[in-house]
Amino acid sequence: MIIVMKQSSTPQDVEEVVGILKSRGLGANLSTGSQATIIGVLGDKAKLGGFDFELLDSVEKCVPIMHSYKLASREMCPDGRLVQAGGEVVGGKKLLMIAGPCAVENEEQIMKAAVGVKEAGATFLRGGAYKPRTSPYSFQGMEEEGLRLMRRAADATGLKVVSEVVAHDLIETAAKYCDMFQIGARNMQNFRLLREVGRSGVPVLLKRGISSTIEEWLDAAEYIMSEGNYNVVLCERGIRTFETATRNTLDVSAVPVVKERSSLPVIVDPSHAAGKSRYVLPLSLAAVAAGADGLIVEVHPNPAEALSDAAQQLTPQAYAALFQKVGAVAAAVGRSME
Amino acid sequence: MIIVMKQSSTPQDVEEVVGILKSRGLGANLSTGSQATIIGVLGDKAKLGGFDFELLDSVEKCVPIMHSYKLASREMCPDGRLVQAGGEVVGGKKLLMIAGPCAVENEEQIMKAAVGVKEAGATFLRGGAYKPRTSPYSFQGMEEEGLRLMRRAADATGLKVVSEVVAHDLIETAAKYCDMFQIGARNMQNFRLLREVGRSGVPVLLKRGISSTIEEWLDAAEYIMSEGNYNVVLCERGIRTFETATRNTLDVSAVPVVKERSSLPVIVDPSHAAGKSRYVLPLSLAAVAAGADGLIVEVHPNPAEALSDAAQQLTPQAYAALFQKVGAVAAAVGRSME
Amino acid sequence: MIIVMKQSSTPQDVEEVVGILKSRGLGANLSTGSQATIIGVLGDKAKLGGFDFELLDSVEKCVPIMHSYKLASREMCPDGRLVQAGGEVVGGKKLLMIAGPCAVENEEQIMKAAVGVKEAGATFLRGGAYKPRTSPYSFQGMEEEGLRLMRRAADATGLKVVSEVVAHDLIETAAKYCDMFQIGARNMQNFRLLREVGRSGVPVLLKRGISSTIEEWLDAAEYIMSEGNYNVVLCERGIRTFETATRNTLDVSAVPVVKERSSLPVIVDPSHAAGKSRYVLPLSLAAVAAGADGLIVEVHPNPAEALSDAAQQLTPQAYAALFQKVGAVAAAVGRSME
Amino acid sequence: MIIVMKQSSTPQDVEEVVGILKSRGLGANLSTGSQATIIGVLGDKAKLGGFDFELLDSVEKCVPIMHSYKLASREMCPDGRLVQAGGEVVGGKKLLMIAGPCAVENEEQIMKAAVGVKEAGATFLRGGAYKPRTSPYSFQGMEEEGLRLMRRAADATGLKVVSEVVAHDLIETAAKYCDMFQIGARNMQNFRLLREVGRSGVPVLLKRGISSTIEEWLDAAEYIMSEGNYNVVLCERGIRTFETATRNTLDVSAVPVVKERSSLPVIVDPSHAAGKSRYVLPLSLAAVAAGADGLIVEVHPNPAEALSDAAQQLTPQAYAALFQKVGAVAAAVGRSME
Repeated sequence: MIIVMKQSSTPQDVEEVVGILKSRGLGANLSTGSQATIIGVLGDKAKLGGFDFELLDSVEKCVPIMHSYKLASREMCPDGRLVQAGGEVVGGKKLLMIAGPCAVENEEQIMKAAVGVKEAGATFLRGGAYKPRTSPYSFQGMEEEGLRLMRRAADATGLKVVSEVVAHDLIETAAKYCDMFQIGARNMQNFRLLREVGRSGVPVLLKRGISSTIEEWLDAAEYIMSEGNYNVVLCERGIRTFETATRNTLDVSAVPVVKERSSLPVIVDPSHAAGKSRYVLPLSLAAVAAGADGLIVEVHPNPAEALSDAAQQLTPQAYAALFQKVGAVAAAVGRSME
Repeated sequence: MIIVMKQSSTPQDVEEVVGILKSRGLGANLSTGSQATIIGVLGDKAKLGGFDFELLDSVEKCVPIMHSYKLASREMCPDGRLVQAGGEVVGGKKLLMIAGPCAVENEEQIMKAAVGVKEAGATFLRGGAYKPRTSPYSFQGMEEEGLRLMRRAADATGLKVVSEVVAHDLIETAAKYCDMFQIGARNMQNFRLLREVGRSGVPVLLKRGISSTIEEWLDAAEYIMSEGNYNVVLCERGIRTFETATRNTLDVSAVPVVKERSSLPVIVDPSHAAGKSRYVLPLSLAAVAAGADGLIVEVHPNPAEALSDAAQQLTPQAYAALFQKVGAVAAAVGRSME
Repeated sequence: MIIVMKQSSTPQDVEEVVGILKSRGLGANLSTGSQATIIGVLGDKAKLGGFDFELLDSVEKCVPIMHSYKLASREMCPDGRLVQAGGEVVGGKKLLMIAGPCAVENEEQIMKAAVGVKEAGATFLRGGAYKPRTSPYSFQGMEEEGLRLMRRAADATGLKVVSEVVAHDLIETAAKYCDMFQIGARNMQNFRLLREVGRSGVPVLLKRGISSTIEEWLDAAEYIMSEGNYNVVLCERGIRTFETATRNTLDVSAVPVVKERSSLPVIVDPSHAAGKSRYVLPLSLAAVAAGADGLIVEVHPNPAEALSDAAQQLTPQAYAALFQKVGAVAAAVGRSME
Repeated sequence: MIIVMKQSSTPQDVEEVVGILKSRGLGANLSTGSQATIIGVLGDKAKLGGFDFELLDSVEKCVPIMHSYKLASREMCPDGRLVQAGGEVVGGKKLLMIAGPCAVENEEQIMKAAVGVKEAGATFLRGGAYKPRTSPYSFQGMEEEGLRLMRRAADATGLKVVSEVVAHDLIETAAKYCDMFQIGARNMQNFRLLREVGRSGVPVLLKRGISSTIEEWLDAAEYIMSEGNYNVVLCERGIRTFETATRNTLDVSAVPVVKERSSLPVIVDPSHAAGKSRYVLPLSLAAVAAGADGLIVEVHPNPAEALSDAAQQLTPQAYAALFQKVGAVAAAVGRSME
């Protein structure tokens, strides 16, 4: 941490700050410039016990230097982590292709979706069984029955299952059906849930919160990893901005930023970012071109009749076409679909 | 709902839309202007079963007309709701004044805080026992012991207790100590938690999510109210914007907007909005001038040594001064402190 | 400036940075912590001639320490500047009350507006003669004839005139009619215009850009002041955020932040922030309670027939009522209306 | 336009609205649902003369239906416009590749840059001669001498010239040296400047404002086109959001959205979006994959010594490598570099 003194600060003010540091077993390194005195804090900041130097009138500001995450950082694993999920390796040359409906609605729907996405080339089936909905009066999901149907459809087609867990007491049940848990954007800072999926040992797909910074997102990954579960895949799904032409604004830059700061793989959800099915293809291509390790795309056998998020789901045919086009871009940037 | 057809749409396109509506038992009202045909949907939108007209190439856009919340709306209770919490009435002439530390740290600290805020004139003591922290390595709260200490301090000084619940399985324990539950900003869309605090019957202070729209916030209140618990107080605490001079941007306009759209009382948390104690007073005055029904302010007997959010907590002395100044503005806008 | 080295940096890397600094006549102060080496740069940063240390692989980040504005800073004038405009003093106890229509539309309209706002108690008449409109097909203003009518109405009623200049070649003409120039939000970074109004010597009301940080706003003020014109009044008018309930989000916190960082007075425009006339009163009260030095409010003799921004203009009667209520809050915070 | 009445509105309220419409020569189409009455306005909205129905207590809201831009719309030119600039065709299969330094600094620098970007394959040279800088104390550009040097370098290497005009009285001078004018993000709503570049007849590269919606951007294009100049190329360059990891957030979704709503070509500026040279490559690939018609990239012979924006400029070598990789992605999506 660096403490920047105000221009109007006196040598006594500087001494006071240094004294506080010393009384807590910390060192201080003074840098007296023409415009401001800067104090570098030497030692473990935790010794400060929460003391906030910005409370002193003589202090202009404190500047943190280090990330708060460690296990999720690039430094801890400079070559990048290869995450294992359902027998797939995520973060290598091959892209992780996940597809399926927003919500499991009935046996026929999920089976048709599974057949369609499998034929297109996907390896993971997605589908919501517990739906976090903005209004209490919207369809809330089929719950465990939905998970059961999804598992059956996946087994019948040779797919793996990823589904969202929305509360920690559902983890045990969900673990019976899922190869990977999804933590949704709204729960990215539900720290109790993060810890518990960490303890479960099940691989986790961690979506970025709609208005979370990349640093907060990596801190959330750290919660899971600090419980010993390193199989975490990050998922960028659009952030909230002033622009209303799309449901959210896909932060495609997050892909190279995450690659630089973290060792974890990062995939992209173009469906939630766009909110409109006609933008899903260009955003998918952009994501893979930018270096994403995979895509999670909403596919429904009959989007127009979907019970939720109808506007952003693709038909299996459209997904098959997308898969081909993504393959061409993937090849152009040195990645592969299989 | 209104469906706006594209300029390029044909009479056949319009017929298709009308046909879909009729097949689902809904009526259509056509308005053919010089530039676009507009179709007003007559009947209960739920009959559409999720069909999304924006998927049709001939449709420009769909415009929702109604709020999704009902119980929380102004229409349901035009004169405004008076919320009961710990024997206090919220939403009337008297302001709800809540104060206390960010987190309960030990017996002496919470007792000193309680004595200080009681002397200043507050009626509710706040204090976090379960702290949602961005990093897993930060202080996470004293948990039930913290609630116990806070209850004791409140009883000793004649205050009521409000504290945050961060998971639904903590509700039963927390209910033993709290007169009011707080739902924090990060949990505003933790729908399971919202339902469960709704079922608990305990009054709820519902903070606005850091990037939630006012409509989403009222939808969250609806979750609680739909379980039969109408004792909900809203709390504006700043939203995330591009400006970094303050921790968040206090959306003071949310106060009159909420008053217009909802019957629920709304208070303001200037401490989290500002993030710096020196801005807490002006924001408190602004909130009350704008019509807020109360304030929740962070007060710590020794802010510089606080274990969390040190920079934004006031001393009891500063809070007493704030209380007096808020009283003057309250009187100027027809409100009172007692 | 502070240079933070990466954890992986070597002593050679540090030497390289120090060498670059020395070769440009700058000093370096090293602070070697357990986690990172930090280099404080000693001397005038301008000597770096644009060299960017973040380009070096061994550098984590560079942290600027100083503001780029000087004349606008609080440090240069710790007691605050009293701005002179049209015989009024801005920044003292008395609030600057500006009111008038969005645009000058005709002689009768501006005269009625002037009479109304004068009777209510305002001292300055506002009105747009050159209107920056989003669409080229919207009403663009009466231009010089509008200024002439406004001047006449102001002289007849004993008011002063403030009006927007939108291009530097209009300054000479506008100076014939105006006591104060307004720089609109869209032109806050039209640096050519800022310099030229600086040279004109006419007092300036500088609106904050819709997505400008407070630092950028003060840098814009610096452009005007660097030409020798210190009569600058800042105006907060709402920023662009994700919330759509109001036209913009009034950043009421900007008032105390500006007061702390700058010596310039700051007023608030609740009309553009709210975008709806029914929110103008609560936002006006909030602004004055937060410490604003005045208000600029849109008032039209017949808002429903206004040629622009109809929804946010008050009637003269509503403004008179607002003026009284603002007076009560002003008194409560130690300010006055006259 | 659609007028939505409040649920509490009476038949008399509806009659009042209809009466106002009729008195202005407009028709009304009523749609009375179970929850709200909706009035479709028939005829040219301009006849309303600015009357705002939201001022009536009985009106819930007004919903605009049509864009305000016409010439820039897709409807006016469904196959897309091919823009002519400096002998190049923009908007066809071939990508427009623009590169060069942030600012022209001296003859050697711009000549080296020109040679480098030409060798890599670019067709247009960029370089700022008049720099809009946040602080008045930063380097402001070489002005006309900069344009002269850039023209000479372009002619010597067979490139075309694009450079920013920052004020309307510089257009005549700039037209002597430029094949295309750039309107910078800060001037996107400098309507006087937009009209004047429209009148100049010189092709225009119109950057999106840092916090402008896509609709406002297309309205800005309409200003230029409404003066008869249809050679407009749009340029997405990142928007301002809460995320600080990158200088701005590249809104890559804007590419397909613009393609759908407008007939104009759209290119991307990854340098300003990223703000860091190491993110320029992935963002370039993402932009082209999403369908952008070209790229404008900052290239400097010696980025570390650049007088402005040093951190985001590439070396000519890095640009040559980027050009090759962009070519591979371009081919994968059916575009070409020549």
